[in-house]
Amino acid sequence: MTLADEIAEHTALFNSLRLQNADPAEIEAAKRKLGELKKAQGVLNAKEREKKGDLAEGEKKKDRILLKTPKGTRDYGPSEMFCRLHIERIVKDAFALFGGSCLDTPVFERKDVLTGKYGEDSKLIFDLMDQGGEQLALRYDHTVPLARWLAMTGGGGQGKVWQVGKVYRRDQPVMSKGRMREFMQADFDISGTFDPMIPDAEIVSLLSTILNNLDLGEYTIKMNHRKILDGIFTVCGVPEDKIRTISSAVDKLDKLPWVEVKKEMTDEKGLDPTVADKIGEYVKHKGGPELLDILTSDATLMANKNAKEGIEDMALLFTFLKAYKVLDKISFDLSLARGLDYYTGLIYEAIVEGSAPPGFKAADASADSTPVPKPKPKSKPKDAGEDEEVDESQIGVGSIAAGGRYDNLVGQFASAAASESKSSKKSAASTPCIGVSIGMDRIFALLWPKWVGLGGRCKDTMVYVMAAGDGLLEERMELVRDLRAEGIKTDFLAKKKPKLPVQFAAGEKDEVPFAVILGGDELKEGLVTVKEQRWEFRDGAKVKVESADKGAKVRRDELVAWLKSSDVWKTWA
Amino acid sequence: MTLADEIAEHTALFNSLRLQNADPAEIEAAKRKLGELKKAQGVLNAKEREKKGDLAEGEKKKDRILLKTPKGTRDYGPSEMFCRLHIERIVKDAFALFGGSCLDTPVFERKDVLTGKYGEDSKLIFDLMDQGGEQLALRYDHTVPLARWLAMTGGGGQGKVWQVGKVYRRDQPVMSKGRMREFMQADFDISGTFDPMIPDAEIVSLLSTILNNLDLGEYTIKMNHRKILDGIFTVCGVPEDKIRTISSAVDKLDKLPWVEVKKEMTDEKGLDPTVADKIGEYVKHKGGPELLDILTSDATLMANKNAKEGIEDMALLFTFLKAYKVLDKISFDLSLARGLDYYTGLIYEAIVEGSAPPGFKAADASADSTPVPKPKPKSKPKDAGEDEEVDESQIGVGSIAAGGRYDNLVGQFASAAASESKSSKKSAASTPCIGVSIGMDRIFALLWPKWVGLGGRCKDTMVYVMAAGDGLLEERMELVRDLRAEGIKTDFLAKKKPKLPVQFAAGEKDEVPFAVILGGDELKEGLVTVKEQRWEFRDGAKVKVESADKGAKVRRDELVAWLKSSDVWKTWA
Repeated sequence: MTLADEIAEHTALFNSLRLQNADPAEIEAAKRKLGELKKAQGVLNAKEREKKGDLAEGEKKKDRILLKTPKGTRDYGPSEMFCRLHIERIVKDAFALFGGSCLDTPVFERKDVLTGKYGEDSKLIFDLMDQGGEQLALRYDHTVPLARWLAMTGGGGQGKVWQVGKVYRRDQPVMSKGRMREFMQADFDISGTFDPMIPDAEIVSLLSTILNNLDLGEYTIKMNHRKILDGIFTVCGVPEDKIRTISSAVDKLDKLPWVEVKKEMTDEKGLDPTVADKIGEYVKHKGGPELLDILTSDATLMANKNAKEGIEDMALLFTFLKAYKVLDKISFDLSLARGLDYYTGLIYEAIVEGSAPPGFKAADASADSTPVPKPKPKSKPKDAGEDEEVDESQIGVGSIAAGGRYDNLVGQFASAAASESKSSKKSAASTPCIGVSIGMDRIFALLWPKWVGLGGRCKDTMVYVMAAGDGLLEERMELVRDLRAEGIKTDFLAKKKPKLPVQFAAGEKDEVPFAVILGGDELKEGLVTVKEQRWEFRDGAKVKVESADKGAKVRRDELVAWLKSSDVWKTWA
Repeated sequence: MTLADEIAEHTALFNSLRLQNADPAEIEAAKRKLGELKKAQGVLNAKEREKKGDLAEGEKKKDRILLKTPKGTRDYGPSEMFCRLHIERIVKDAFALFGGSCLDTPVFERKDVLTGKYGEDSKLIFDLMDQGGEQLALRYDHTVPLARWLAMTGGGGQGKVWQVGKVYRRDQPVMSKGRMREFMQADFDISGTFDPMIPDAEIVSLLSTILNNLDLGEYTIKMNHRKILDGIFTVCGVPEDKIRTISSAVDKLDKLPWVEVKKEMTDEKGLDPTVADKIGEYVKHKGGPELLDILTSDATLMANKNAKEGIEDMALLFTFLKAYKVLDKISFDLSLARGLDYYTGLIYEAIVEGSAPPGFKAADASADSTPVPKPKPKSKPKDAGEDEEVDESQIGVGSIAAGGRYDNLVGQFASAAASESKSSKKSAASTPCIGVSIGMDRIFALLWPKWVGLGGRCKDTMVYVMAAGDGLLEERMELVRDLRAEGIKTDFLAKKKPKLPVQFAAGEKDEVPFAVILGGDELKEGLVTVKEQRWEFRDGAKVKVESADKGAKVRRDELVAWLKSSDVWKTWA
């Protein structure tokens, strides 16, 4: 895509957002991006004209630079990062709550570590230039680096590992849908041999805890089991070698009607129409644990070893999820297939109501085991679909987290590498794993409009130290230093003799709740003035509450205690 | 460097650490790395033999993979990350304490943004492969992306911005010195026009706060001023066009004796020996604010505009640093020059005693303005030296943080780009900046031996829920869920009916302080048993304190309150 194409696309996006009366924050972001692109084009045009000798003297520069971030990437400024850090804190706190410990791997891997893991999406891998050394590529997800680490080290006996960081896909970026080339994922994985479905229930409970704590609104965790799906396909008469491709067709049922999916199965993939119809009967089922009764009363299905094992797994899982009190968030959905080949058991994805199309209702929180209405996300363009993680291209469609059980991936790594070390091969080969991957950019996109509407602070400074009259610069510095030494986030205006209103304005920009004002005479008596600053919403905008209150006189040496015992402090800190 | 070379180097390192009776953690790390390399070599050998058709049948694999991280990179496992997260928390808390807000830029930039910023070190930039699009490269530091962002956006009026993340330099890695190709830096910068030396004093106070809070031992912040240096050079008779190269020679005084530096000035750089001797007289000065008296009484020097301005800046800075109570950490050192061209004012670097060679003494904390003994780090290999940030190759030598004032960099970006937008050019051109860059890997290397010696926990789980006898799996899950809902980090063994000693062992591995034991009969009465777990050091090793204590019977519905009011909780949480 040329810069001109990008500008055209963004102009269209900006106009459409305005016509739709979209969220002001979204419109503002689109406008800003458009401005940046146009500015970049201005520079480019100047460059072109310079080539033709067509440039005015003053415009000539040898080192003219296009000031923009690379295609498909963006900067996150202070207000946006304040929101992102809030999200990260909630996610990481939950990871620690569930006993996870952190792993950090390099942002790039040896290319052969990534090769053959992502099917036809391998073309999206960002390669580094071979500058005389190894062939390297940016990581595509966190799962493959984790599996490499587990195969190399055995994981040091650690069962629960989390990773939060950016991953890279050289996809065609579509800014209007938030499809980025650099995006952040937060992964939590449990590796090792445990008793059936216990780690699985832990992961589902973790995902539910995070979604609750993020306060994203109602959500549903759709789940299914690969063995049940495979059993259904076998029982319906799908040939062994067509199971994966038919599974991929089923995966499209959330965006295509059955008649289209059937057509793909029969016309494109050569499946017998009667077999397809039998599959159609099965995959329409969705609901809660009562679906197990329907399946277990199906003697033909129960006669299939895979299906029976999968159904038993799900029965056990539902028992556990009841103990974890998350049953009301679950939709057992036989049409959920997920694209990636290496799943071997439970699979799931989370959909938030706020991110679903109009008409979608998340699981009713009051009904523990009531069938959940099937979310019907609107049609979306098809991606390669060989992708385990949250597909960031799906923004505006639904899934904000996804994952499943992959019991053989670490073993595949170990057997491909450790040919000389039979023992490590054996131990790594028996490293079953289950994990979840949370799309942090997707969550940011959902939370940001609310967040910016609440005022858009970019820091949580608590005290702004000011001075009247003569500036009292060193006295301000001393007080700032003393408050910071007590752990109180404090700032002041880096000017020698600033006017008082200028200092108030600087503190108000970040909604700092306490203004501490120094005055020469007061200070000699050991006193400072503290004014509480309050903000409230009026007509949807946040405004400072003006007050005739002259502030409290507080002894300087009692200031810390005074601040920490105030009501405002307790509300903010 | 071939794999065989790497193995030879690591074998030498491992043997030398053992001979030196080095820290066990360091020896263990060296041993592990050596093991990984040898394992990788085994695989490589198998590959070679396979090429020659020399491989046993069972060893043949089509997709054989070298299981290692790329050259100059490493994984950080759970115990190491627990230490790193502790460091990050301290640094980020201080950034917030000082009113900073966060910026996040992409990990790669358009190549032309980085071009011409790093002198001859530009060859160390990691380029991405041109896969039909922009020329991209991994970021080399945080300063250039920040300057790009400031030139693009003006910074949204934000004066204080911090960034924590990895940067990349395709240097020849030397593992034994900790020189890595991927390493983490934490930057804090203040941009904008303020009154003289106030932001400078803020940055020095911030750096001091961080080093205090990290508890790294005694440290010194060496500082100097570019204008004083330039003034000295001019006054001594250095020609204008030789000032930067003579400055680079002076920068080597911390690793070379004066006679060598003088030789470089005269023999290599063609400076008149009498001029060099005059410089030698100046740059031997170091100490506290009293050095100002020596300089201000030097009429020749004070007649130089640059020198006079620099000396006035330093006088003002010392006044402020006294208010900030950090004067005792400062060494005003006229031999500090720092390599990077774009510094325009104050420059500084921090040296920790633990990282300095034997014999070095940090500033005496009791002497506010006593001359500080000059640290004499041992000779180190010369790098290109055109590097603003902490040079990670210097591990084992000293500097763990560095920075300075760069008032023209943002303006250079703006004028190179915004040729068509005169107004933004003007505003960005007047964006003076000062910043500090903290070498997180260096700090990790200093703290890790202590940290791992304290037990090497990798998570801070507080409660381990267990069951006697029948397993009580769902009851354990319910209690785990309830405790987590109260924010208590809780875990349990993911087995159906694990034996009690196995559960204790699992909890003890992470030094979990509370064991909560469920028993069928007790639970019917609404009771659980809580046993506090304690560890202590014996002969330098951490061991669990065995206790005959049978534990306390606590009502299940009062468990949260009981836990949170216990002494152990207050110690740990």
